[in-house]
Amino acid sequence: MSLMIQPVILCGGAGTRLWPESRGTCAKQFLPLTASESLFRQTIARTPAGQHFMPPVILCGDAHVATVREQMGVHEATLIVEPMPRNTAAAIALAVAQADADALLLVMPSDHVIADIAAFHAAIGRGAALAQQDWLVTFGITPDRPDTGFGYIASGAPLDGDAFAVDRFVEKPPLDEAERMLAAGGYSWNAGIFLFRAGRMRDAMLTHCRAIFEAADRSVAAGMRDGDALYADAIEFERAPADSIDYAVMEKDDRVAVVPVAMGWSDLGSWQAVHALAAERDAAGNVTGGDVFLHDSSGNLVRAGGKRVSLVGMSDVAVVVDGDDILVMPLARSQDVRAAAKARE
Amino acid sequence: MSLMIQPVILCGGAGTRLWPESRGTCAKQFLPLTASESLFRQTIARTPAGQHFMPPVILCGDAHVATVREQMGVHEATLIVEPMPRNTAAAIALAVAQADADALLLVMPSDHVIADIAAFHAAIGRGAALAQQDWLVTFGITPDRPDTGFGYIASGAPLDGDAFAVDRFVEKPPLDEAERMLAAGGYSWNAGIFLFRAGRMRDAMLTHCRAIFEAADRSVAAGMRDGDALYADAIEFERAPADSIDYAVMEKDDRVAVVPVAMGWSDLGSWQAVHALAAERDAAGNVTGGDVFLHDSSGNLVRAGGKRVSLVGMSDVAVVVDGDDILVMPLARSQDVRAAAKARE
Repeated sequence: MSLMIQPVILCGGAGTRLWPESRGTCAKQFLPLTASESLFRQTIARTPAGQHFMPPVILCGDAHVATVREQMGVHEATLIVEPMPRNTAAAIALAVAQADADALLLVMPSDHVIADIAAFHAAIGRGAALAQQDWLVTFGITPDRPDTGFGYIASGAPLDGDAFAVDRFVEKPPLDEAERMLAAGGYSWNAGIFLFRAGRMRDAMLTHCRAIFEAADRSVAAGMRDGDALYADAIEFERAPADSIDYAVMEKDDRVAVVPVAMGWSDLGSWQAVHALAAERDAAGNVTGGDVFLHDSSGNLVRAGGKRVSLVGMSDVAVVVDGDDILVMPLARSQDVRAAAKARE
Repeated sequence: MSLMIQPVILCGGAGTRLWPESRGTCAKQFLPLTASESLFRQTIARTPAGQHFMPPVILCGDAHVATVREQMGVHEATLIVEPMPRNTAAAIALAVAQADADALLLVMPSDHVIADIAAFHAAIGRGAALAQQDWLVTFGITPDRPDTGFGYIASGAPLDGDAFAVDRFVEKPPLDEAERMLAAGGYSWNAGIFLFRAGRMRDAMLTHCRAIFEAADRSVAAGMRDGDALYADAIEFERAPADSIDYAVMEKDDRVAVVPVAMGWSDLGSWQAVHALAAERDAAGNVTGGDVFLHDSSGNLVRAGGKRVSLVGMSDVAVVVDGDDILVMPLARSQDVRAAAKARE
């Protein structure tokens, strides 16, 4: 990479797939899930300011500003505070609206893990060359299983740098279609990581989702600066339709590239994934955090949350304690945590 | 029954088989385990003062006096406070030492359930007649399974009133011996419920375990009365060897009778038993207490202990919360709770 990249970190969400730990102000990205560092801090560290990367722009909600600042520590960053959630297209539009037209923006979720950072950096280098040629670049994760939890990207014509023009985006598929794509090859998972020239994205948004960009642009212009933070104007931003960047731009544009990359990526979308990707486990495959006693128990994920958890004769379950909430479920049922989160929140 | 019976309720223990709820000052007998009433209150209510029963004598440790008084409510009782635990022989000796020689004492644990109180009362009537003839009477539970957690009583020669002379006591047997006894018939479980004339037990103790009785007798004489409570003298009581009434007296005496009775008895010796005997359960066989959310879960015992417990896709487990302790185990592994209790207490 010879170009400076501007990381843009999306920090707005608070999903419930890792309930009860992830909720409200305690969003998943701020939790230390697979290591001692939170996912947000891992994300920041992945593109360190210096030779290749500028200090990041961080998009977050008002409720998360304090946590973001605390976890940033001494690192330099620009915060853009979203007055209300309006999905990823509007959030990215805020970042685009305040950027130089020729800046290369690398948009990343804040709650993913990437094991192989060298592979990630190499892919960014390939993507940057394409972004300079006005491709909207996505990074496609090479699938290793027929996962039905992700959108897929079908590769089209080959481009320079082990990349492809995108043929089409496939929404989260049923299992048989996921199996078919895995067997056929030429498909990758849409990880929600994008790289583009700011001016190019501005033009794409004005073409494909003008209302979103104009609301975001006015919201930045009318916004309030407070030190390193820009508080986007609420009245203007509220007018932005809520849509994902995939629907609003990527699926509609005809110059989108995918850079396939195998980099040990996971979106940690379930407690099962947290168990699978934990940095440390005991000889019986248990992953524990906090004051946990295990007797004749194997393959469990136990997060004690300040309480004292004792398992006797249990296998392959998640026990997650957070405040007064205690969740118990088989790890294999992790997708169904939403039932509990919905009932409890 | 034409005679007045003096109930003697043993309230001293604090077992760990129902850990984490049962421990220290929060002993099993004071917990509402199968119904809204605690086992202790159920025990008191089983022999109500009036036509047949005198107000009970309650033996308990110092740590439990406040709880006993609170749960007694307006009921009349005499408390005998044991300065330290010395097992059942010494506890019963305290009750015997302060009783009239001709009083008929009905000794009962405080942490059992009896579903059929009419059957229990009928058995007491049969036992009382034998006790007046100076038999030491035990009540034998008719076994319905080869349980290895109880001692067994072998019936000998038949006596009046559907009773038998005891041939011998059998300690907690291995499974094959338990199965043999169940198949052979003529055996019953030793439930630790006894009926005898106080003077007769005094003589038996002076014969079989003189040191225990003499220490208890002196401890009563030197004890301190405070309203309805007798605080046994600690220096004297400490001299009593710790032994069970079974070992110290029953197994040695040659005039012991057993009155077999089927009365829906359980010692609630495990969380599995608590689940099996619960008064209420949902259509999927879940027994819950407190704030419990269940999704696609069946056959579980969940006691939320003031917290909020959510189960997703779980079957046949116990989740018991008490203070900061959270226990999770298959109900079928309930016997192994001691491993956790030992590690945690």
